[in-house]
Amino acid sequence: MRLAALGNAQSRTSGLSLGRLARKVRHFHNRQSRTVSAMADATPNLMDNIINLCKRRGFVFQSSEIYGGYNGFFDYGPLGSELKKNIKDAWWQDMVRRRDDIVGLDSTIIHHPNTLRASGHVDNFTDPMVDCKESKQRFRADQLFFAPVIVAGETIGYVSVMEDEGMQAKAEQSAAEMKRKLAKQGELAPVVLKDYTEATPEQHALIPSPATGKPGSLTPPRAFNMMFETKVGALATEDSVSWLRPETAQGIFINFKNVVDTGRVKVPFGIAQIGKAFRNEINPRNFIFRSREFEQMEIEFFISPEADWAKEHKDWIEYCVNWFVSIGVPREKLSLYAHPKEKLAFYSKGTTDIMFEYPFGVQELQGIAARGDYDLQQHSKACGKPLEYFDETAKKKYIPHVIEPSVGVDRTFLAVLTAAYYEDEVDGEKRTVLRLHPRIAPYKAAVFPMVKNNPVVLERAEQLYKKLKRRWNVFFDTAGALGRRYRRQDEIGTPFGITIDFETVGIGKDGAPIEADNKVTVRDRDTCKQVRMTEDELIKYLEQQIEG
Amino acid sequence: MRLAALGNAQSRTSGLSLGRLARKVRHFHNRQSRTVSAMADATPNLMDNIINLCKRRGFVFQSSEIYGGYNGFFDYGPLGSELKKNIKDAWWQDMVRRRDDIVGLDSTIIHHPNTLRASGHVDNFTDPMVDCKESKQRFRADQLFFAPVIVAGETIGYVSVMEDEGMQAKAEQSAAEMKRKLAKQGELAPVVLKDYTEATPEQHALIPSPATGKPGSLTPPRAFNMMFETKVGALATEDSVSWLRPETAQGIFINFKNVVDTGRVKVPFGIAQIGKAFRNEINPRNFIFRSREFEQMEIEFFISPEADWAKEHKDWIEYCVNWFVSIGVPREKLSLYAHPKEKLAFYSKGTTDIMFEYPFGVQELQGIAARGDYDLQQHSKACGKPLEYFDETAKKKYIPHVIEPSVGVDRTFLAVLTAAYYEDEVDGEKRTVLRLHPRIAPYKAAVFPMVKNNPVVLERAEQLYKKLKRRWNVFFDTAGALGRRYRRQDEIGTPFGITIDFETVGIGKDGAPIEADNKVTVRDRDTCKQVRMTEDELIKYLEQQIEG
Repeated sequence: MRLAALGNAQSRTSGLSLGRLARKVRHFHNRQSRTVSAMADATPNLMDNIINLCKRRGFVFQSSEIYGGYNGFFDYGPLGSELKKNIKDAWWQDMVRRRDDIVGLDSTIIHHPNTLRASGHVDNFTDPMVDCKESKQRFRADQLFFAPVIVAGETIGYVSVMEDEGMQAKAEQSAAEMKRKLAKQGELAPVVLKDYTEATPEQHALIPSPATGKPGSLTPPRAFNMMFETKVGALATEDSVSWLRPETAQGIFINFKNVVDTGRVKVPFGIAQIGKAFRNEINPRNFIFRSREFEQMEIEFFISPEADWAKEHKDWIEYCVNWFVSIGVPREKLSLYAHPKEKLAFYSKGTTDIMFEYPFGVQELQGIAARGDYDLQQHSKACGKPLEYFDETAKKKYIPHVIEPSVGVDRTFLAVLTAAYYEDEVDGEKRTVLRLHPRIAPYKAAVFPMVKNNPVVLERAEQLYKKLKRRWNVFFDTAGALGRRYRRQDEIGTPFGITIDFETVGIGKDGAPIEADNKVTVRDRDTCKQVRMTEDELIKYLEQQIEG
Repeated sequence: MRLAALGNAQSRTSGLSLGRLARKVRHFHNRQSRTVSAMADATPNLMDNIINLCKRRGFVFQSSEIYGGYNGFFDYGPLGSELKKNIKDAWWQDMVRRRDDIVGLDSTIIHHPNTLRASGHVDNFTDPMVDCKESKQRFRADQLFFAPVIVAGETIGYVSVMEDEGMQAKAEQSAAEMKRKLAKQGELAPVVLKDYTEATPEQHALIPSPATGKPGSLTPPRAFNMMFETKVGALATEDSVSWLRPETAQGIFINFKNVVDTGRVKVPFGIAQIGKAFRNEINPRNFIFRSREFEQMEIEFFISPEADWAKEHKDWIEYCVNWFVSIGVPREKLSLYAHPKEKLAFYSKGTTDIMFEYPFGVQELQGIAARGDYDLQQHSKACGKPLEYFDETAKKKYIPHVIEPSVGVDRTFLAVLTAAYYEDEVDGEKRTVLRLHPRIAPYKAAVFPMVKNNPVVLERAEQLYKKLKRRWNVFFDTAGALGRRYRRQDEIGTPFGITIDFETVGIGKDGAPIEADNKVTVRDRDTCKQVRMTEDELIKYLEQQIEG
């Protein structure tokens, strides 16, 4: 029983521990878990710089900061909530509204508990955990590494370390120390680390706890369900248990029949959903990359069982890569990772991840899984009604197969920020600039009256500002030198700076009236080039740049 | 202890029981709880019709329907998710992007537990509950009514009924029956119902349970917290308890300092947030009006303690009413309800609800509360740092006061549907039509080729469709007679039907070429009037109608 549970427990994290868990079935497409180490080049402080900028300019705050923060939770501030909304809106527009073959859905976060039983999450959505009975701390077993310390062929004890880049060195140092303390003579064998899921029952008692440094307090690993549990209804009984969804996908599957019956859809078609999902991660880390409360954008794209799934899968991968590129993620920072066949769940036909070069390594940005008919079959069995589709062309009923493109909003947010963050020099002055695509930038433009003490200039600037603001999120700034106003907008990614000056309104150098040229200066954030254009030209230009 | 808890418990529902609980302090502005009965006129089946339409056309489904549904949870289907998104987007645009003085926020659903302790929700966000020890059923004490049965001046027993329109008649019938059964002679005194929170300890044992009809099994009322509890982190201890937020407002208060420090805001200013909130309602009812998982759109508008709060409050009420009218809620279906002074919490300066005439009665659509500095004070005390603002003009520090306009997305959705639903007759045929404002309608237009077997007409229609679809959500339909295609769109609220016919493309009646007029027919959903215009005119027209 425990072994079976453990097998499943590890499966979800197979990507994380790479080769180590290859023998285990991979049940869950682990959108939040795989890491392939490869440091981004030459930007040692990039992550710190991004986190600082996020805090300083109101993109992202640690949740409940006034109460000391809350591990694994983040709040999006004024600029962050705009950027996040723009990413979601662009996705919804491109995946749902601009396509003929995808419809939207907005399902609840708390489902009937049978939903997550049928999907397998209640039994299998687990991480292997190990408790330290003495310190009461808990660790992820696949992040706790151990090695026997072997001197002259004899095992004199064990060392343990938590997974990180320096763990091998740390373990070797501990091993050497143990040899010295126990005054053992002879050669210290190479220290070979394994993770705790590979420890034998005998070893469990001998491996020191990372909390206390002493053996004897660690339990065997056991499956820890990562879902947040709650109770629904007036009576707090076993029957009232439910969970916060760990992914938005299951809300789509349980509504498949509803959509087929009401939506005038024909296979192949997709159902898309954006929404919060929750995972009680033991080790939330890398800022908003792996948090406990996050947001997903998922599609279940239903195809005929006889369709060429490999082609559909490939098309979706290409489509998604192009989408990232379209919102400003450079193609060269993206790569593909096809999960090896032997690591896939039995029902899975193939999974490819779109990887992004984050400051902390190349990591999964989006997973695109070909899941066969597994989910609809599971729900059909559990609810006792076949979740079928009648194909009018083929004149037959079947349970469709799915391709599942699934991406995290927060991961996209972080990828977009990472790709956009630059420090350069303008006119001999250092500046930080976010080269965000105009479609997703929090502010689309900033309007600047050249001077703030001339009522004519000021009024014209305000007029233009109000006109633009009806349609787009636009900023108005009169404070300080123009150069400083530019810099403030550069740092938050505002693509266009629009200046109204004396020529615009027809005031000569001496204050005497000249012919107004009725043009404004548009300064490009990235190139710093300036172009003069009329207001009509400006609106057409912005339209084209922002709305793609 | 129990009494104190109970006092608070009842306070939240004071609106519901109207005069009865006037003596109790009202701690929570009860967005989800107040009912003022007044049936909408002459539309006995309106609610059923709306629910049926929602199900039939994919607006709203019972959550987890394949598992028998889940009480208090609803999923929004393809059309519903569009309508809901359009409502939220219109609000965000009007409240945040088009204003200078409001910024957005997107905070987590799970906060640090101190947040909801400081706000008072952990202690006071409760309903008074009563258990039936025999049936194990649980009732809301303020919805369970009882009366002594008095015959010839002697109390011969008690009757109980659950709150509904016919409860008085039912109680009288039960009382008469009791008199008959016990063969009591004399006059039956008028049956005077009170709710169970007003029962004395002696009466608790004498009032029959609504489940069994017999006395002796009901407990005294006790406070039942309406928040969904969960545990965060690897260790399931008391320290790990947290809750799903019961309102989005607290996420705003705990980020006040962050926004002030980073957002370049100046009092008066507001912070707006849209997001899910959760309340473990004992009696979810009236479709999506009172559910357990719902979505809110809230603003905390911070003003100086010396500002004229009554004027700010009044301005906000007016602004919000106008906003509802702007998205198509008729002004005559809206009314105001000012909470009586004696029912307000001690810190509250005033609360006015915007009421809407729902099919099941006039009920709260939006609450607009003047909450003083209560919330920021509470959090200041709890976190040990004063959540102050330095006013550059007044040259002093203070904790601002707030005006809180708070509205439910789902309630707005239902108000909009209720106001839009019509059954009328067109060309002697009955039709159902949703007169949704173009800005929030799921589809903005439908494009119809007059015939589907002429490739020139078809191609031109497809071209126009693709062009419009880049910008708006547009439907394309070739199936069936044109009249039927119109009807299908009328029923889901598509404001414009655009037909491409032979004249558009220059095909004469005999199939010979004539001069193409390059115009399309635009049919108005509400008036059924048709106008011919060029594509350029069409786009300007749609722009103006949709984007307001």
